Amino acid sequence: MPFRASILTLYPEMFPGPLGVSLAGEGLRKELWSLDTHQIRDHGIGRHRNVDDNPAGGGAGMVLRCDVLAAAIDAAVRADDARPRLLMSPRGRPLQQRQVREWAEGPGLVIVCGRFEGVDERVIEGRNLLEVSIGDYILSGGEMAALTLLDACVRLIPGVMGKVASGEDESFENGLLEYPHYTRPREWEGRGLPEALLSGDHARIAKWRREQAEQITRERRPDLLSLLPSGEKVSAKQTDEGR
Amino acid sequence: MPFRASILTLYPEMFPGPLGVSLAGEGLRKELWSLDTHQIRDHGIGRHRNVDDNPAGGGAGMVLRCDVLAAAIDAAVRADDARPRLLMSPRGRPLQQRQVREWAEGPGLVIVCGRFEGVDERVIEGRNLLEVSIGDYILSGGEMAALTLLDACVRLIPGVMGKVASGEDESFENGLLEYPHYTRPREWEGRGLPEALLSGDHARIAKWRREQAEQITRERRPDLLSLLPSGEKVSAKQTDEGR
Repeated sequence: MPFRASILTLYPEMFPGPLGVSLAGEGLRKELWSLDTHQIRDHGIGRHRNVDDNPAGGGAGMVLRCDVLAAAIDAAVRADDARPRLLMSPRGRPLQQRQVREWAEGPGLVIVCGRFEGVDERVIEGRNLLEVSIGDYILSGGEMAALTLLDACVRLIPGVMGKVASGEDESFENGLLEYPHYTRPREWEGRGLPEALLSGDHARIAKWRREQAEQITRERRPDLLSLLPSGEKVSAKQTDEGR
Repeated sequence: MPFRASILTLYPEMFPGPLGVSLAGEGLRKELWSLDTHQIRDHGIGRHRNVDDNPAGGGAGMVLRCDVLAAAIDAAVRADDARPRLLMSPRGRPLQQRQVREWAEGPGLVIVCGRFEGVDERVIEGRNLLEVSIGDYILSGGEMAALTLLDACVRLIPGVMGKVASGEDESFENGLLEYPHYTRPREWEGRGLPEALLSGDHARIAKWRREQAEQITRERRPDLLSLLPSGEKVSAKQTDEGR
């Protein structure tokens, strides 16, 4: 059964949006993955279908009601649905490539898109929603975060990217940022190509790229180096020590 | 002059996409901000308008040519254009709310969307592109990252969100994740409201929210606490020490 995304939102017209274009869009049409949207407002209260109310304790903005959102979730997702249930939220666990890969290999995702000031905390607990953040900035709602998360997942689904996504050399896949890329022309505005890349010596090229990736990561994201799990360097050291 | 976004992309049809909906879309129609897209392929080479080529030194994937991308940038952006020129890239500087706020108050952004394996490094240097990452995951291209970045900026433009965006209490704005939200009903599935929020005591409510925000940040994102600039706690301590 292919990867299936179920989105709960007040703006279903935002989907598939950019995911209907390019390779993700082709994958959608080929049914390599699927998407269904569910309008939270259909479960709103009264003839105006209200979904939000003032924050308890006062303050600015409006809060999405727990009863309305729970009804929307219960209608959209069967109780025995094994897919993770996410709430896109800046308070959530920061999204990382390792998590994307795990979800892309699974049955799909249920994604709740928040709006307004926030979502009543009780529905997060009561419906076991996992809060996920795509970054340390504030969006107008969870929709753009859901699109971004799905874009990251969908490109990893077999057949979607064809041979384009090698995956192995990409940033984060080996815990490092990617080395710099070059292509034709050989000289441009007085800028040539790194000598190693012209050598034709595959070992030398691989070594140069690894060194560049390490250097760029050290300069730009030293925080990533401390997260390296059981990288080559660690293994090499262990070997040196006679294990 | 309102905030203007100029996008260089191989998929102009992805824009405005989700940004044409909801409050961002209304802001676009009211000309509170504007968007123009530029097809990189118009500057491609030969009758097939090629934009990419094999990586120097070998390897999988294709690399966007520096001469093609430079021509596209030069055609789209005047040399005296003061807007920052960004390249959306997982190797870039991680986007943060403080940066979003700075850009939202400026004249706008020029955003280059990469595709394929990457972009020839020389054009990044030669056209002074600032690499920006929206998170530690890989997308199918820079388009979704550009849409996300613009969503974060546009909601801060005066008039776009109306009174909705108070800004002050939101995650990251004060260096902390946001406190939990609650609204009606008073009881739901056996879950009540925190007592402090029912007290009607504004000082007590403010204190409870601050404590909750601190606790959630400590539990979920201790990395943020170390980044707190000159927070209240620091000031208080300095006062205690008799400064």
